Amino acid sequence: MSDPQLCFLTASDLVQKIKAREISAVEVLQAHLEQIERVNPHVNAIVTLLPDRAEQAARAIDEQLDRGEDPGPLCGLPVAHKDLVVTKGIRTTFGSPIYQDFIPDTDALIVERLRNAGAVTIGKTNTPEFGAGSQTFNEVFGETHNPYDLTKTCGGSSGGAAVSLACGMLPIADGSDTGGSLRNPAAFCNVVGFRPSPGRVPVWPNELGWFPISVQGPMARTVEDVALMLSAIAGPDPRDPIALPAAGEGFRQPLARDFRNTRIAWSADFGGLPMDPQITQVLDPQIATFAGLGCEVARGQPDFSDADEIFQVLRAWAFELKFTPLIEKHREQIKDTIIWNAEFGQSLTGPQISRAENLRTQLFQRVVKFMETHDFMIFPVTQVPPFDLKQPYIEEIDGVKMQTYIDWMKSCYFVTVTGLPAISVPCGFTETGLPVGLQIVGRHQDDWGVLQLAYAFQQATQFGTQRPQIAVTA
Amino acid sequence: MSDPQLCFLTASDLVQKIKAREISAVEVLQAHLEQIERVNPHVNAIVTLLPDRAEQAARAIDEQLDRGEDPGPLCGLPVAHKDLVVTKGIRTTFGSPIYQDFIPDTDALIVERLRNAGAVTIGKTNTPEFGAGSQTFNEVFGETHNPYDLTKTCGGSSGGAAVSLACGMLPIADGSDTGGSLRNPAAFCNVVGFRPSPGRVPVWPNELGWFPISVQGPMARTVEDVALMLSAIAGPDPRDPIALPAAGEGFRQPLARDFRNTRIAWSADFGGLPMDPQITQVLDPQIATFAGLGCEVARGQPDFSDADEIFQVLRAWAFELKFTPLIEKHREQIKDTIIWNAEFGQSLTGPQISRAENLRTQLFQRVVKFMETHDFMIFPVTQVPPFDLKQPYIEEIDGVKMQTYIDWMKSCYFVTVTGLPAISVPCGFTETGLPVGLQIVGRHQDDWGVLQLAYAFQQATQFGTQRPQIAVTA
Repeated sequence: MSDPQLCFLTASDLVQKIKAREISAVEVLQAHLEQIERVNPHVNAIVTLLPDRAEQAARAIDEQLDRGEDPGPLCGLPVAHKDLVVTKGIRTTFGSPIYQDFIPDTDALIVERLRNAGAVTIGKTNTPEFGAGSQTFNEVFGETHNPYDLTKTCGGSSGGAAVSLACGMLPIADGSDTGGSLRNPAAFCNVVGFRPSPGRVPVWPNELGWFPISVQGPMARTVEDVALMLSAIAGPDPRDPIALPAAGEGFRQPLARDFRNTRIAWSADFGGLPMDPQITQVLDPQIATFAGLGCEVARGQPDFSDADEIFQVLRAWAFELKFTPLIEKHREQIKDTIIWNAEFGQSLTGPQISRAENLRTQLFQRVVKFMETHDFMIFPVTQVPPFDLKQPYIEEIDGVKMQTYIDWMKSCYFVTVTGLPAISVPCGFTETGLPVGLQIVGRHQDDWGVLQLAYAFQQATQFGTQRPQIAVTA
Repeated sequence: MSDPQLCFLTASDLVQKIKAREISAVEVLQAHLEQIERVNPHVNAIVTLLPDRAEQAARAIDEQLDRGEDPGPLCGLPVAHKDLVVTKGIRTTFGSPIYQDFIPDTDALIVERLRNAGAVTIGKTNTPEFGAGSQTFNEVFGETHNPYDLTKTCGGSSGGAAVSLACGMLPIADGSDTGGSLRNPAAFCNVVGFRPSPGRVPVWPNELGWFPISVQGPMARTVEDVALMLSAIAGPDPRDPIALPAAGEGFRQPLARDFRNTRIAWSADFGGLPMDPQITQVLDPQIATFAGLGCEVARGQPDFSDADEIFQVLRAWAFELKFTPLIEKHREQIKDTIIWNAEFGQSLTGPQISRAENLRTQLFQRVVKFMETHDFMIFPVTQVPPFDLKQPYIEEIDGVKMQTYIDWMKSCYFVTVTGLPAISVPCGFTETGLPVGLQIVGRHQDDWGVLQLAYAFQQATQFGTQRPQIAVTA
């Protein structure tokens, strides 16, 4: 097996081979480091690389195996952390020049859990400045390129993660999602990104412990690998007040399930969002795939009225808390869109927030009602295919002008505000060869059901196996 | 057994006797209706009474038993619902003249669950206007009297519930708690009130689905009965987004537990709240009771800085949402304190709310840290004993002036903002014969532990068994 081939094994296969001593953790690491050396200069996905530190960690895994110990479910898997999560002793920039030399003295909980599960940290993945916006560029590291077309964006904000996976530079990667940041880059890069239920992956440190809009979650090339990674990062932690009580191990069961008679609501446009026809053209034929699984598929969706107001208000409100002190000190080093967002947050009144919270509750109750007769909902992940790298955000879709820099992300953030678990799973390519994602949304806290249905879809279609040329030939 | 004696059996005993056919549900109902007829005119706790409807329901329970069916864990127990929860076909006033003739067309979830568990609705219990403030008086029904001294308040807002229990007019009652409304009246009336973890008892209907400040919960004369009632009202419901997944049945296990080496933090004043010395005088000797159970008791508490700001801001914010439309239409029919509170809410800015949410997260994290070395915390429930019925709220404690009408409730609402489960359990009487409550607070979501420790305390002390004279002699 050549090294690039090894880099495109699934995470599950890699773990099995390492545990069976068919290959060492150090060899797996070396293969990935070589792949990074070849491919990363073309895509700029991994922005901090620590080969020596990683080699030490990989060696420690092999030594654990020598001693007959079990290093954990992610045994020897190279991982890089989104540059928004703090990593002890490893530069963490948040994509901002203000933090370009910042070295935290603590690990985020997700980093600690990945390491405790046997994963080997090799560095950090690129994000937009402070993760704001679904296009991965910043003043510290520049843009991350879409590996399927280097002139296009990879999406974001977990853009570096998605590209690293697509290119075989990593088998698993962590991400986070407020308005779609685990789902959008997965869709744009032909990989899988799962936005779990709030509290499924406890978050620490955390400034707003009860804020179920922002979550952390797993990304990989296959649904099975996403579930494997989730099993290591899910489960309660006393420091997160909304952490769900179920242990992570539950996500290591077999994913296969009989979906006959499962009732699916299929929505091409959330009941009226503008859509680039290329997306609809790719998604619509997949109704037949779900029918082939035995599902009853009917077009429809709940009423998403007010979803936009809810998201825009709650996000701006959180931005205000996070960025006001920073803007006071470093205004000139912060991008305009963030300043605009924080100032919108500063202008909010208490009654605007309570109205948004009340509307969110009403939306949740409408969705729960709708899901009494539907087991899953299916939506597009994005309203457009990957766009020009030099364009910071989408200004118009199908003739409809966008009002803000995040407007084009409604197909993700409408789902965010429902609080339901959602996955982006590969769904093929546009006629010009750009990846498209399918979004499966499950009932309240039915993370497992979402993973199972996505697994069945990926098994049936084998989407997500076509590698970007650059990753094979670079 | 005389009828009043029957009315002071525990709920658990009543259920057992009804299920064993030693006594019928109709007989149990009759005994309670007679007790209400005798005692309620003196205390004004039950404000809507439906004897015919209750008799029908009790008869249906007996018929279920005739057919060999199990009517549920609360089989045949009379219950009355706090007049803040909606009851289908039964007048629900919220203690407000605006709603004095309001008859809802739907049952609150807690009402539905109680009925499904075999409880028999006999009517509604009194509350302050819209539940605001911990003193039970309103323009529709007047004041509810403390049965241990009819010139004193019974506390609130679940005041009618607490008095009904103390007087043997009900064996179980539901309540709700934002700033102490399940705990304060329990303390003032020598009964047990349990504020469960947010989501433990799902709330529906609900305007703010993700707001973990207000909860519903059980009240009874014994901890065992509170646990029995909780077992019927706990457990997930899809309409409540923060509902905890554990089924209610878990709360029907035996409560006995060995508390040797359990580490308890004992705080006489939350680290500096003004206290009426009568309260401290009653509570302090009970350190010996916990020591007698084998606990290691040490004085101390986490740092409650900012708890007041957090609560005042979040409560006012919720008041604004609820009352602004009502104040616009019926200002003259709403009490000044609510108008003041809603207007405070209207004046809040988004940044004030986000600051409060951030401070709440920090407080939670300090408490979690503190509880790494303490299994439980013990506090006073109230800072004062029951006070004059004609006084709407406490204006000064131990020489310290209160700033608002809810200031005197800090000993309850400081616990509210931590999000932890808390119980008020009887702890004896002041020298003038007024009841005092002890507050046990457990770790995040350790509702069961709190119930177990309160049970051990009640077993050891037998507090809560001394009946008010009025209930026996009226």
